[in-house]
Amino acid sequence: MTPAASQGSPGGPLQGFTVIDLTRVLAGPYCTLLLADLGARVIKVEQPGLGDDARQIGPFVDGDSAYFMSVNRNKESIALDLKAPADRAVFEQLLATADVLVENFRPGTMEKLGYDWPALHARFPRLVFTSVSGFGQTGPYSRRPAYDMVVQAMGGIMSLTGHPGAPPTRVGVSIGDLGAGLYAAIGTQAALLQRGRTGLGDRVDVAMLDCQVALLENAISRMEADGRAPGPIGSRHPSITPFDVFRAADGWFVIAAGNDALFQRLCAALELPALPEDARFATNPERCRHHEALKQLLEQRLSAAPCAHWQALLMQHNIPTGGYNDVAAVVNDPQVQAREMLVQVRTQGGRPLTVAGNPVHVGAHRTQVARQPPRLDQDREAILAGLARQ
Amino acid sequence: MTPAASQGSPGGPLQGFTVIDLTRVLAGPYCTLLLADLGARVIKVEQPGLGDDARQIGPFVDGDSAYFMSVNRNKESIALDLKAPADRAVFEQLLATADVLVENFRPGTMEKLGYDWPALHARFPRLVFTSVSGFGQTGPYSRRPAYDMVVQAMGGIMSLTGHPGAPPTRVGVSIGDLGAGLYAAIGTQAALLQRGRTGLGDRVDVAMLDCQVALLENAISRMEADGRAPGPIGSRHPSITPFDVFRAADGWFVIAAGNDALFQRLCAALELPALPEDARFATNPERCRHHEALKQLLEQRLSAAPCAHWQALLMQHNIPTGGYNDVAAVVNDPQVQAREMLVQVRTQGGRPLTVAGNPVHVGAHRTQVARQPPRLDQDREAILAGLARQ
Repeated sequence: MTPAASQGSPGGPLQGFTVIDLTRVLAGPYCTLLLADLGARVIKVEQPGLGDDARQIGPFVDGDSAYFMSVNRNKESIALDLKAPADRAVFEQLLATADVLVENFRPGTMEKLGYDWPALHARFPRLVFTSVSGFGQTGPYSRRPAYDMVVQAMGGIMSLTGHPGAPPTRVGVSIGDLGAGLYAAIGTQAALLQRGRTGLGDRVDVAMLDCQVALLENAISRMEADGRAPGPIGSRHPSITPFDVFRAADGWFVIAAGNDALFQRLCAALELPALPEDARFATNPERCRHHEALKQLLEQRLSAAPCAHWQALLMQHNIPTGGYNDVAAVVNDPQVQAREMLVQVRTQGGRPLTVAGNPVHVGAHRTQVARQPPRLDQDREAILAGLARQ
Repeated sequence: MTPAASQGSPGGPLQGFTVIDLTRVLAGPYCTLLLADLGARVIKVEQPGLGDDARQIGPFVDGDSAYFMSVNRNKESIALDLKAPADRAVFEQLLATADVLVENFRPGTMEKLGYDWPALHARFPRLVFTSVSGFGQTGPYSRRPAYDMVVQAMGGIMSLTGHPGAPPTRVGVSIGDLGAGLYAAIGTQAALLQRGRTGLGDRVDVAMLDCQVALLENAISRMEADGRAPGPIGSRHPSITPFDVFRAADGWFVIAAGNDALFQRLCAALELPALPEDARFATNPERCRHHEALKQLLEQRLSAAPCAHWQALLMQHNIPTGGYNDVAAVVNDPQVQAREMLVQVRTQGGRPLTVAGNPVHVGAHRTQVARQPPRLDQDREAILAGLARQ
C-alpha cells in the first residue's frame, strides 16, 4: 500500500490524480464523488463559516446532513476565503499541485475572483478546468440561476414523464444535477486523456440544461418522425410493446418483451395462444398501435395470480421481467448486495448511514469509504503540511 | 489535420483512441456515442444480416430507424460473424490495433465466443474491455435478461416518480440504458487513464441495475433518516420548498426558491408579504412540512396572470424560474440553439433528422457529425485496407 493509500485513498484507477473541488450542493459534488470513488485525491475547498450549502440541507441524521453525506465521502476539506490574499495564496499553491479544478458557481464568479480560464491556463498550463453550471458559460441564459427543477422542466424530460392528463411530474431523483455530474466527469477525464497527448490542460464547460437535452435521446427524432411533440405515456415504452408495468393479483411488476420472438414466448408462457395470431398484435408497430387493448388482455390474465408467480414463470421462459421495487426492496435485493452497491458512511457522532456506491467497477476495485464525509476544514493541517513538503 | 481526421473524425479530446464496438440497441451504443463524439475512432462490429437490433426499431424516417440514427453518428460499421474463423481473424486484428473493446451481450456470451477477459488480457494486455449488462458480470441475477424497463422498476427510480396514488410511472426517457452508457464511458476513460500509469488495460463491468441504484442518490439515506421508503411526490422536491411546478393563468412553470433568502425575495416579488411571517413557512423544514398549504397560497396568486408575466418578474428578482417545455419548445429554445445542442444526421436517402448533440464541451470542441450513422458493413473495405497497412 502506498503512503497516500494508507492516509485514506480508496485506491482505484484514478490514483495519482488530484482534483481541487470548489463545488457545492449536488451537480458538481456528484462529479467529484465519481472521481474520488475511482481513486482521485479530491480536496474540497469550502467557504469559511458554513461551507458547502448542502451541509444545511435535510434530512439530518445525528445532526449531520444526510444529503451532504450521500455525495461527499472520500474527499478532504479545507476552508479558504478566495477573497483573502493569504487564502488565495494557499489556493494557488494547491492548483500548482493539481490536475483538475472543478467548480459550479454561477458563470462570472470565477472571473470576478481573478480565476478565469485564460489566467489559470497561463499560470497552470497542465490544469484541466471543469465548470458545471445551469445553462453553460455561453449563450443568452448563461448568467441565469438554475436548479435541478428548472432544467428538468426546461429540458423537456418532465414533458415526457407522467400520465396523460395528469399534472406535471418530476423525475423522482435530481437527474438535472446527477446527469450534469456524470457528463462533467466524462469531460474531465477526456481532457486528462487529451493532456496525455498534448501536454496541456483544457476548459470543460458542462451545462445542466444541455445534459437534459442529451438525455432526451430519441424523443427529438421521434418528434420529427411523428410530426408532433411526444407527451407523457405513463409507464410504457414509446416504441416497444409490451414493455410496461402490469398489475397482477397483488401488485405491479414488469414485462419487457422487446421483440416478436419474446412476445410469442410470453403468450405461450401465459397460455394466451390467440394473441400472437391476432393481427393487432402480430408485429411490434401493430402492438404499439394497440397497446391499450393488449395491456387489458394481459392484465385480465395476470389478475389470476400474484406477481411472484408470474415473475417465476416468465424467468423460466427467459422473458425479461422484474419487480416494481421501492427503495427498501432495492436495499434488500440480493443482486444489489452481491454487487456491493451500498456502502456505509458515518456521521460525526459515529452513526452509520447507508448510501449508494459507485457502479463503475474497474478490475477488482469497488467503492471504498476510505474517508468519511469531512467536517468543514478538517484536513487543513495535513493539506498545508503536504504543500510545505513540495 | 491528420489523415484520420480528413477521413471523417470529429476531432476532439479522444483523438487517437480506437474503440471496437460490439454493442447493440441503446446502453452500449450510447457509451460509444459519447466516446465517438469526443473524437475516438469507433468501429461498430455488427452481426451480418440485420446488424444492430436498433436498426429494426421505429419510428422510421425515410426507411431508416430514427432510434438507430439518434445514437450511431461518428461510427464506422463492419459486419463480422464472430463464429466464423475468417471473421474472427479480422476481429482479432482489430483488437490488436485498438485501445478499448465495448460489448453489451448477456454475460456468458463473450466467454462462449472465446473472448473472455483472461484470454483477451493475455493476448492484448493494453486493451480495456468494457462490458455493459443488465445485472453485471457477477451476482445471482447476472445471466438474467434485462431491458431499461426492468431496471427502472427494480432499481427504485420508478417508485419515486409519479403522483401519490397513481399507477407506476416510468421516467420518460430510457434512463436505465442512458445511465449505464454514461457510467460505462466514465469507467472506460478511468481505465485508459490508469493504463497511462500501469501500461495495462483493465476490465470494466457496468450493470444497468447498479447504475439505477447509484442514481437514487440521497433517497437511500432519506429512507434511513425518515425510517420509511420514500414514495412518489409528483412534481415537487422532497427536501426543498418551494421547489416545484406551479399553475399560472395559462399553464405551468417552475419556481425553485432553494433557500430562505430566495423565498423572502419570492414573496416580495409576488407581493405576498404575509407568507414569510407565517410560522408555517419561516424555514425550509417548516415549508416542506406545509408544502400543500404553501402551494395553494402561491397558486391563488399566480392564477392572476400568465406564465410569461411571472417568469419575467421572477427573473428581474433573480429567483430561479423556468418554463415547463415540451420537446418542440426545447428544440426552439435560444439557449439550446446557442449551445449547439442539436445536430443533424441524414438518412441514407438524404433526409435530415435532428438529434441531440453531446453536452461535453471541451475547449472549442462541439459535436460534429463527421460521419453519418453507418449503413451495415459500409466501412468494410476501408477498415480492411487500414489493417493491411499496419
